Amino acid sequence: MKERILELLEAKKYPEIAAMVKDMNPADAAVLLEELPQSNMPIVFRLLPKELAADAFAYMDGDTQEVLIQGFTEKELDEVMEEMFLDDTVDMIEEMPANVVKRILRHVDEETRKMINQVLNYPKDSAGSIMTMEYVDLKRSMTVEQAFERIRATGLDSETVYTCYVTDSRRKLEGIVTVRELLLSPKTAVLRDIMETNVKFVSTHTDQEEAARLLSKYDFLALPVVDAEERLVGIVTVDDAIDVIQEEATEDIEKMAAIAPSDKPYIKTSVFETWRKRVPWLLFLMISATFTSGIIISYEDALAANLVLSSFIPMLMDTGGNSGSQSSTTIIRGLSLGEIRYIDVPRVIFKESAVAMLCGLTLAVTNFGKLMLIDHVSMLIAAVVCFTLVVVVLVSNVVGGTLPILAKRLGFDPTVMASPLITTIVDAVALIIYFNIAKLLLGI
Amino acid sequence: MKERILELLEAKKYPEIAAMVKDMNPADAAVLLEELPQSNMPIVFRLLPKELAADAFAYMDGDTQEVLIQGFTEKELDEVMEEMFLDDTVDMIEEMPANVVKRILRHVDEETRKMINQVLNYPKDSAGSIMTMEYVDLKRSMTVEQAFERIRATGLDSETVYTCYVTDSRRKLEGIVTVRELLLSPKTAVLRDIMETNVKFVSTHTDQEEAARLLSKYDFLALPVVDAEERLVGIVTVDDAIDVIQEEATEDIEKMAAIAPSDKPYIKTSVFETWRKRVPWLLFLMISATFTSGIIISYEDALAANLVLSSFIPMLMDTGGNSGSQSSTTIIRGLSLGEIRYIDVPRVIFKESAVAMLCGLTLAVTNFGKLMLIDHVSMLIAAVVCFTLVVVVLVSNVVGGTLPILAKRLGFDPTVMASPLITTIVDAVALIIYFNIAKLLLGI
Repeated sequence: MKERILELLEAKKYPEIAAMVKDMNPADAAVLLEELPQSNMPIVFRLLPKELAADAFAYMDGDTQEVLIQGFTEKELDEVMEEMFLDDTVDMIEEMPANVVKRILRHVDEETRKMINQVLNYPKDSAGSIMTMEYVDLKRSMTVEQAFERIRATGLDSETVYTCYVTDSRRKLEGIVTVRELLLSPKTAVLRDIMETNVKFVSTHTDQEEAARLLSKYDFLALPVVDAEERLVGIVTVDDAIDVIQEEATEDIEKMAAIAPSDKPYIKTSVFETWRKRVPWLLFLMISATFTSGIIISYEDALAANLVLSSFIPMLMDTGGNSGSQSSTTIIRGLSLGEIRYIDVPRVIFKESAVAMLCGLTLAVTNFGKLMLIDHVSMLIAAVVCFTLVVVVLVSNVVGGTLPILAKRLGFDPTVMASPLITTIVDAVALIIYFNIAKLLLGI
Repeated sequence: MKERILELLEAKKYPEIAAMVKDMNPADAAVLLEELPQSNMPIVFRLLPKELAADAFAYMDGDTQEVLIQGFTEKELDEVMEEMFLDDTVDMIEEMPANVVKRILRHVDEETRKMINQVLNYPKDSAGSIMTMEYVDLKRSMTVEQAFERIRATGLDSETVYTCYVTDSRRKLEGIVTVRELLLSPKTAVLRDIMETNVKFVSTHTDQEEAARLLSKYDFLALPVVDAEERLVGIVTVDDAIDVIQEEATEDIEKMAAIAPSDKPYIKTSVFETWRKRVPWLLFLMISATFTSGIIISYEDALAANLVLSSFIPMLMDTGGNSGSQSSTTIIRGLSLGEIRYIDVPRVIFKESAVAMLCGLTLAVTNFGKLMLIDHVSMLIAAVVCFTLVVVVLVSNVVGGTLPILAKRLGFDPTVMASPLITTIVDAVALIIYFNIAKLLLGI
């Protein structure tokens, strides 16, 4: 499709382009525009039907939005701002340079400007920062018919109409009622009698991840957000919750690989920024790893007596690192899904030890066979290597399984206890175990 | 709450328990029941109001459901099956032993049994396997008023009423119409004129991850699923899509840590099963790592001449592994979110090289300082170590950045190219680089 549009642009056949794009889905139109060259993109944008153009605008990335805004007439900017939902506007503003923000804010009314500033002031990653303030609010004394009238009157500007919020005169949340219930109730029924009063809600300062987790747990389409006085100030909708879930998973994955999390896609992150996200952990881990040098040097005598011992160091360290990261990864994911808690520590230790014994023995038996049959090393050396394997796997699993839980208990992010740090810890422990077993069995 | 209920159970104060639980949210009630001892749990279940009991049942894990079903009278089983949605029933059946499944199937009507069997036959992880067949279908000739009548008539048994599907006489999907549009349209409008005809859909065999990705991309509440003849057979709802997104993230994280993915929470997986998920990769990686022994032995002369060289092996290998896993992790996540494609390979190579040069130099300078000032090694040795560092980080980043994309291009799962395998590859490469630089600079 992109190629065809580029051809038509070349030939200036604009009506044909308009016919091609007029029924596109807004999300698809946004992707198409992002991929067009900057010089032509605004032309195609103007060929979209007005409403589709505004919807597509909300789906675009910040760079494309900025190019468009720079070229907008005052009237075009008005039209787009009119159509956008508040949460999308806030997302956009957060990515724009100051002069563009100023221009945008001139095009929204006083009340919206106030709301935007309010949302911008909530802490990053809080429920307040991702909520929208455009919802349908109802009163407990309304009948079903009156509720539908109110939905028809305010629905066009609300991000969702399917869950409506019943508030009192001080905006305190009293209950929720879904359109489904309204449809299935007689027209004369009063909301007071059909609304659900056991309402789940979060506060503006609740972590966005917690809000998304609740929304998913209860299968809600939207979750109300209240302020410190328990007044309803906004809602978090399910589509934003999905974005949060994806972002948080990406963040966890990045942190587990010892990268400071970034909120931009890889392709859009500069080399310098990528370096800044990666180098602190690399430095820290490198310096920690130099302690292993110290350990090796302190066992220099044992090593000089039996140089072949040094050839098994990488394999032992890798295996320790791998089993440690298997258990730490499992535990970190379990913690972040809320499946594992502090009280589970004894259970985790028992299970990791049992699994480690099974894994360690499997590895040791295989390796013993290989060392004797293929490498033809002495049986004593083989025994040292394989006995070390079992002990190293045991230690790695217990360390990898418990450190993330302890980190969380102490108020740290458990992902810092992911593979890279566990590997560094396990490396040092593995070397000490290895050389001591060697000294013991080989009598050096 | 659990403690209070256990006390009341002890004292047999059942009416008080009933009063406590009667307004609970179904998801919360399910968690409560799962945590009660098996002997008491069915008593509390029977104290729940009927509808809440059935709703809570759908949220419980398989073990708890099984205990309850074993104790159900025929009438109780009837009531629960009546209330459950088809996709929840299928989820449940997949976890039950054969005799329980037989008993369940006796309690559903002929038509439902057919539908259950059909869903059970779709491939695991396909859109067909997670869809529900209970949706509202409308005809293009209906007016808005008639549409609402139909929604009122069939809505109670549908998982969502908010997106309705317009089909022709052969069940072919012609368009969709949302309740929001129905509410905002005049009662006499005809669906033909207001329905959206540019409909996004998936087939029963589409990967569930792709279905969830589409649903999230377009911010839908439900996505239609069609069969090979393009007839509508079901819908995937947003709550199931969220579960898929969570599961797939967990799966990716597990695979990146070299664990075969499991669909059970950690606490519910047996020791033997955990061993089976972890040991194959540990074995494979251990055997791959033994090649590093071969490399070290083949450079034994260089090592014997300068034993201190062996003490830097762990640090060099760890750093290579860490930077390789930073880049492979970033790329794998980008691939799975659809942000990076095959055509991006040159860009990835350029960027990883540039970042690697920056990171490598930072690490080398720091390490050189430490080696000279703290460890007091000779300048030549320090040069060997630091020069190796730069080369190793460069190779790790390029290998870590490109292998996942190539794996995907060749039809493999890119997650196999995650940290553990990259670490093993990088280890071998790092050693060869290290010894060759040492031979060159030290003249051994």
